[in-house]
Amino acid sequence: MRILGIDCGSLTTGYGVIETGAPRHRLIVAGVVKTNPRETFPMRLLAIATGLRGVLAEHMPDEAAVEETFYSPNSSSSSTLRLTHVRGAVLLVLAEAGLKVGEYPPARVKLAVTGNGRAEKVEVQSMVRILMNLSEPIASFDASDAVAVALCHAAMRTVEIPR
Amino acid sequence: MRILGIDCGSLTTGYGVIETGAPRHRLIVAGVVKTNPRETFPMRLLAIATGLRGVLAEHMPDEAAVEETFYSPNSSSSSTLRLTHVRGAVLLVLAEAGLKVGEYPPARVKLAVTGNGRAEKVEVQSMVRILMNLSEPIASFDASDAVAVALCHAAMRTVEIPR
Repeated sequence: MRILGIDCGSLTTGYGVIETGAPRHRLIVAGVVKTNPRETFPMRLLAIATGLRGVLAEHMPDEAAVEETFYSPNSSSSSTLRLTHVRGAVLLVLAEAGLKVGEYPPARVKLAVTGNGRAEKVEVQSMVRILMNLSEPIASFDASDAVAVALCHAAMRTVEIPR
Repeated sequence: MRILGIDCGSLTTGYGVIETGAPRHRLIVAGVVKTNPRETFPMRLLAIATGLRGVLAEHMPDEAAVEETFYSPNSSSSSTLRLTHVRGAVLLVLAEAGLKVGEYPPARVKLAVTGNGRAEKVEVQSMVRILMNLSEPIASFDASDAVAVALCHAAMRTVEIPR
């Protein structure tokens, strides 16, 4: 089973595709879609959608996972607003591809990957490297976080009790 | 020039296409895309995108306009979150269609159509009817609001000073 994890952002959206397996999952690809802040916002949404559609076409994931958005008193409302727009565009692209989408709070993702719901990005990056058996950490936090979301989805699927 | 106005909503998204003209603009179409609350949220975004793509294909607008989102202390954060996701999906659809998108604060739209930035929906509906020379008001507030956004865009375009 291939899982696409996405870390949404209006400047940089990270993605990671893993192939689930025992005893270890395997990393298929991890990367980022960057947007040009001088473009109009709708054109930036289009760049993100186009980038993700390329990943979908090339790596054919079976399911997808994203982080839930929430209001943080620490984030400015304009950055939350932009992020939420990106998330809407991303969810549309995933629905078009017919993918089931898991949504997880950021703390759940961190907990699943590091055992600590309040882990720093660098700890997530380090654990993603270990869990994926990579010789080097994934350079971009956005891509590494995206792989973490995919790993969280893989873990949550495993514990799902069929009805 | 044909202008598509959109009133975003996660349950009902209104749309209206006007043909600009003097002395009067002409209404081409006004309607709503409804979504099923029992569907997953990504599937509801897809329903909205599919509905709007149908409107774009049939009525071929030249430009589009939407209301700006903002944080209102009166709206619950979950409804604002859903609305913003819808807006992200809608802006993506408009960018895909190559349309320039005007964005206006709700008060600007009301002001442009009724002369009062704090007008009620029923006043907007009534003025849309008069301005569009319709025998009946547009039944749905969402569709009527969408036409108001298109009218606001038409007015703002007119006063734009070319550089």
